[in-house]
Amino acid sequence: MASSSSLTLSQAVFSPSLPRHGSSSSSSPSLSFSTFSGLKSTHFTSSHRRILPSTTVTKQQFTVRASAAVETLEKTDAAIVEKSVNTIRFLAIDAVEKANSGHPGLPMGCAPMGHILYDEVMKYNPKNPYWFNRDRFVLSAGHGCMLQYALLHLAGYDSVQEDDLKSFRQWGSRIPGHPENFETPGVEVTTGPLGQGIANAVGLAVAEKHLAARFNKPDAEIVDHYTYVILGDGCQMEGISNEVCSLAGHWGLGKLIAFYDDNHISIDGDTEIAFTEDVSARFESLGWHVIWVKNGNTGYDEIRAAIKEAKAVKDKPTMIKVTTTIGFGSPNKANSYSVHGSALGAKEVEATRNNLGWPYEPFHVPEDVKSHWSRHTPEGAALETEWNAKFAEYEKKYAEEAADLKSIITGELPAGWEKALPTYTPESPADATRNLSQQNLNALAKVLPGFLGGSADLASSNMTLLKMFGDFQKNTPEERNLRFGVREHGMGAICNGIALHSLGLIPYCATFFVFTDYMRGAMRISALSEAGVIYVMTHDSIGLGEDGPTHQPIEHLASFRAMPNILMFRPADGNETAGAYKVAVLKRKTPSILALSRQKLPQLAGTSIEGAAKGGYIVSDNSSGNKPDVILIGTGSELEIAVKAAEELKKEGKTVRVVSFVCWELYDEQSAEYKESVLPSSVTARVSIEAGSTFGWQKFVGDKGKAIGIDGFGASAPADKIYKEFGITAEAVVAAAKQVS
Amino acid sequence: MASSSSLTLSQAVFSPSLPRHGSSSSSSPSLSFSTFSGLKSTHFTSSHRRILPSTTVTKQQFTVRASAAVETLEKTDAAIVEKSVNTIRFLAIDAVEKANSGHPGLPMGCAPMGHILYDEVMKYNPKNPYWFNRDRFVLSAGHGCMLQYALLHLAGYDSVQEDDLKSFRQWGSRIPGHPENFETPGVEVTTGPLGQGIANAVGLAVAEKHLAARFNKPDAEIVDHYTYVILGDGCQMEGISNEVCSLAGHWGLGKLIAFYDDNHISIDGDTEIAFTEDVSARFESLGWHVIWVKNGNTGYDEIRAAIKEAKAVKDKPTMIKVTTTIGFGSPNKANSYSVHGSALGAKEVEATRNNLGWPYEPFHVPEDVKSHWSRHTPEGAALETEWNAKFAEYEKKYAEEAADLKSIITGELPAGWEKALPTYTPESPADATRNLSQQNLNALAKVLPGFLGGSADLASSNMTLLKMFGDFQKNTPEERNLRFGVREHGMGAICNGIALHSLGLIPYCATFFVFTDYMRGAMRISALSEAGVIYVMTHDSIGLGEDGPTHQPIEHLASFRAMPNILMFRPADGNETAGAYKVAVLKRKTPSILALSRQKLPQLAGTSIEGAAKGGYIVSDNSSGNKPDVILIGTGSELEIAVKAAEELKKEGKTVRVVSFVCWELYDEQSAEYKESVLPSSVTARVSIEAGSTFGWQKFVGDKGKAIGIDGFGASAPADKIYKEFGITAEAVVAAAKQVS
Repeated sequence: MASSSSLTLSQAVFSPSLPRHGSSSSSSPSLSFSTFSGLKSTHFTSSHRRILPSTTVTKQQFTVRASAAVETLEKTDAAIVEKSVNTIRFLAIDAVEKANSGHPGLPMGCAPMGHILYDEVMKYNPKNPYWFNRDRFVLSAGHGCMLQYALLHLAGYDSVQEDDLKSFRQWGSRIPGHPENFETPGVEVTTGPLGQGIANAVGLAVAEKHLAARFNKPDAEIVDHYTYVILGDGCQMEGISNEVCSLAGHWGLGKLIAFYDDNHISIDGDTEIAFTEDVSARFESLGWHVIWVKNGNTGYDEIRAAIKEAKAVKDKPTMIKVTTTIGFGSPNKANSYSVHGSALGAKEVEATRNNLGWPYEPFHVPEDVKSHWSRHTPEGAALETEWNAKFAEYEKKYAEEAADLKSIITGELPAGWEKALPTYTPESPADATRNLSQQNLNALAKVLPGFLGGSADLASSNMTLLKMFGDFQKNTPEERNLRFGVREHGMGAICNGIALHSLGLIPYCATFFVFTDYMRGAMRISALSEAGVIYVMTHDSIGLGEDGPTHQPIEHLASFRAMPNILMFRPADGNETAGAYKVAVLKRKTPSILALSRQKLPQLAGTSIEGAAKGGYIVSDNSSGNKPDVILIGTGSELEIAVKAAEELKKEGKTVRVVSFVCWELYDEQSAEYKESVLPSSVTARVSIEAGSTFGWQKFVGDKGKAIGIDGFGASAPADKIYKEFGITAEAVVAAAKQVS
Repeated sequence: MASSSSLTLSQAVFSPSLPRHGSSSSSSPSLSFSTFSGLKSTHFTSSHRRILPSTTVTKQQFTVRASAAVETLEKTDAAIVEKSVNTIRFLAIDAVEKANSGHPGLPMGCAPMGHILYDEVMKYNPKNPYWFNRDRFVLSAGHGCMLQYALLHLAGYDSVQEDDLKSFRQWGSRIPGHPENFETPGVEVTTGPLGQGIANAVGLAVAEKHLAARFNKPDAEIVDHYTYVILGDGCQMEGISNEVCSLAGHWGLGKLIAFYDDNHISIDGDTEIAFTEDVSARFESLGWHVIWVKNGNTGYDEIRAAIKEAKAVKDKPTMIKVTTTIGFGSPNKANSYSVHGSALGAKEVEATRNNLGWPYEPFHVPEDVKSHWSRHTPEGAALETEWNAKFAEYEKKYAEEAADLKSIITGELPAGWEKALPTYTPESPADATRNLSQQNLNALAKVLPGFLGGSADLASSNMTLLKMFGDFQKNTPEERNLRFGVREHGMGAICNGIALHSLGLIPYCATFFVFTDYMRGAMRISALSEAGVIYVMTHDSIGLGEDGPTHQPIEHLASFRAMPNILMFRPADGNETAGAYKVAVLKRKTPSILALSRQKLPQLAGTSIEGAAKGGYIVSDNSSGNKPDVILIGTGSELEIAVKAAEELKKEGKTVRVVSFVCWELYDEQSAEYKESVLPSSVTARVSIEAGSTFGWQKFVGDKGKAIGIDGFGASAPADKIYKEFGITAEAVVAAAKQVS
């Protein structure tokens, strides 16, 4: 049933975000795929193929575009291009002016390249922004978002209508102050924090290259799209962009095409004051093909030729340096920082209208421009329809591959996948949770077709190698072990791009837990943009020993527990590690962090996957009536210590409950009844132990309880010695329990 | 009194750290300079000038070295060099072997360049590691710390004696698992997290270039040293290193010489798997002079020639790519990742001893090697003595400059400096704390000779320009406004280097508060390495408005409150901003973060510099007997809301105390009595309000109180609207107060 299977694929869309303002937007651990509402009226089944567009584009031209994946760069009448470009400029000017907030400079300068991309080059279906095989576009210079909103509006995306443009940057608007994938269908990733976008784009291009290598056949190029990105001077200065561009060159991402908006202006003025390196030479050193378009303001043919050249270079990513004038068209503010981040002001808007010969009212799109762009709706629908038919053919010939690809596209996990998770008994050998994690990773990779990932040059310490796969490299992109090198920040942001490429791509990435400090920018974007990346963070405490305080996390657990929409797991043993992975895989719109031990830990009695999924649960208890003398709470490697302390206290006749708090956020989601069953309000004698900051623990131990932890930096010595010297011991727990009970 | 003034300068040392394990090492807000204990017996007053060394070095040679600042690279007998280099290798091998933990590979490969630097090139005084005009050395590849420890040992530093080498990586050792400036005199900065060291080195070189430009005279080159750094492939891959090397090239830091240990091996194996860029070409694109030493294993003369060439290039930093063999000398493990991070093992140690012809016991330094290195003690003392005399001359001729430089060297702040801080009354105009911050910055720069800083391309938003100074640039290095470009991580780490260059250099740096996520790696090193950087973080909440959730901090206050040894300030108005700056300037061994508003705030009644310095204090209260009906706690922009809510509640007859919690860490340091006077334990009706995560607030509001905050992401809209929609209002406080009281 080709058409119905195509339909399923087309409907595989990211569910729009629930209202998320003001509260943590954690979702329940199950997947939901809502159908994009705009799909019904515009979706083309295979019976509707070859619908003619209503514009002046001829059937023949159109067929070429649809079937040859826009490989020819067609020239359109120069006048309409110019008019279209000015429409983009004034939509941006007008929206920023109405909001009295925003960044008009970039859209005014980048309108020509934006126009060429969306009108002449990219393949997309405006009525289904989630069509799988679309070209991806990322505005890494996210502050210039009005450029993208204007383009989405002209291209026919339902998400950006005229009323939306008028509500730019207002409460409840669908077009916020920076591009947000979870607010605006058609926006692929969330940008604004500079450098994230180019990194996401590398991730999108990695996903395409990987899937193309795995699924394309000589007779069926089923995965085939480009990733385009516009980045500015700010992105270029950020270290993360050098990290990811070095990897893009190394991996030979030939279908990644980056436009560098070289306008010589940043917020503080001319880039001369802080940025005088030779960017083109740097990119060449990183293994990129580099082209310079000297006149980005009006050199349309130069831009077109550059894209054509970029596409011809298949073994390298291309950077097209496009020299533009920021705020092009503004007679008094162009080429100055004053046009970067503020509305032009009524007077200068007027002057710019005069200067560019723009007689229209604010937000007006001239009819001929509208008409010119209107072909993208039928054209995009036809592109998708054609691809659907191709996929139906593919499915017939390559059933197994098609099933895997479908799972990756839709995010529907293979039935029974969770049975692959290992379980443990107290008799199972003691092991470090980093090793137990590796057992889980390898088990999951066998059953989840979209599971892939790697480490920032610590694979053998983080224990993250998938043993049945080789390395994803330039010439082996079908493999699933990613080698990120020592580039944590880039790694996290690349994984965001991979996760947001397809619902069923589940990327994990790894480093030492303390080095989350290097990639926190990307991790926050995972949380905000609902990218379900799994962060495998080993060496999670002073328990790593001799490497010392530079490598020993202290405040990191607390710092992530405070971050919205991210799950901070600290499993104590094998069952809890498996439980953490189970939730992490299910939560496709919430990233997860697993803090894992370097040192061996016993498999504890009473731990379970189900318990871990509740975040906090009772591991052992010798009391009755929900009224133990004391409650001992532990996480990770310290749960063992809590268990030992409980044994001591029990010997002395106390009733003791031991609670594992593997994930605070999941516990917070449980019902009041459940919480009362774990931490009864009448029992105020509570002691927590965790080899990290005590910050935040008062929430669970209460005014009368005691939190044992480490509120200074660690030390360089063997782990056992540090634990003893820092008082992270069963003796300390016993003493505290006696104090509080 | 030339000699006594010199003495004061020589004694200007960083006080060794107090024991800091297991507790937050916050010091009281006053400066203390302890004298380096090794100084007494070895310090040379001017009467001891020209002491002859006891080694074979002739007087003439020695005089050349001391007076010409080691401009000639002397060759020593090749055999003793080789033996010395092998001594370094085996000290590293033996220490790692004894600890059964550590990284022998780098020291074995880098021993030749290490030897040449410490024995032939660098000027330093081993008996006063804090001598101001010493050359600085940074091991950016900090895991190879045994290289530096071995060199310090041979050079005669008291901090690394034979017993220390034998206690490597053990509890209480003076030589921890990575180089830590606060543990090991002779180590300049704290490295290990990759990329930090090269960034610190850029900061050290900035400090030198700035001070030299400000204080050198045609007849007195009083500031004149090089900064050397060794970095590896790992450092090169990190984005931060590209950020800072781009700046180093831009600034033309001619006295920065970086050795790139090009050994082709990282933890995961050959660098081919993730790092194939052309590093030399990249550095050329960044404006560096690049030299390639092809044989770093035995090419001593090549290394010497490269250094000579590097010194001759005065307008560019130099990168010397030195191709080495990791684990050089180990017959079975050299040139493999297995020698990177583990002890060789007894068998391979034996094989290496045989291979390199090393018949000695572990930790043995042959007598001729000892004798060869022994000249550095008298030579270093003479260098310092000579400089002291030079400074005495300088002081006579240039009294004003000498006073400023002395303050910068010793960290002794000019008397009465704090009187420059502005104060405000409730009648003072309402203003954003970012603007009030600028008043403070400009006031401080006038009275503090070592005060300098800048922003990551947001000077006009962060309000950080020092109006009486120009920009620190290649040709105007005497100026004090640093233009970091959009390079937050590099900025923080450069400031660490500046702060650790001289006790009286007080660097500040600025960006939006949310972008601390980009530089958290450097900020944690500020805290750990006791670098008193001032972080000026504006746009501190949803109050920034339209830029939306990518730009709105939520969890950031909590995340820094949980970090050891860093002060997280959130001042509410002008007086509190001044109070925060007062403490931040005084706390030279604890970095401070100021979270500042974009929006205008009123000057509140009851706020004060003194109150702010206590961290938490009563702003208003209409109760008596320390028993208000309810306590309202606010920080920053929400203190105003708490005050408004109090007014409402008072109208209804309640007694209400308003408490400002401008800095939790300072409050935690106060006496129990003081805390009881602010938050009496009998008053459990407490409400806190802060436009950020409620995480951690339970500590102050208690089990029965209520914390008002934001536990999800923000939104893009005008600030007033967001505050209202998120319930950060006086009405919400009033309602909560009624609930809890």
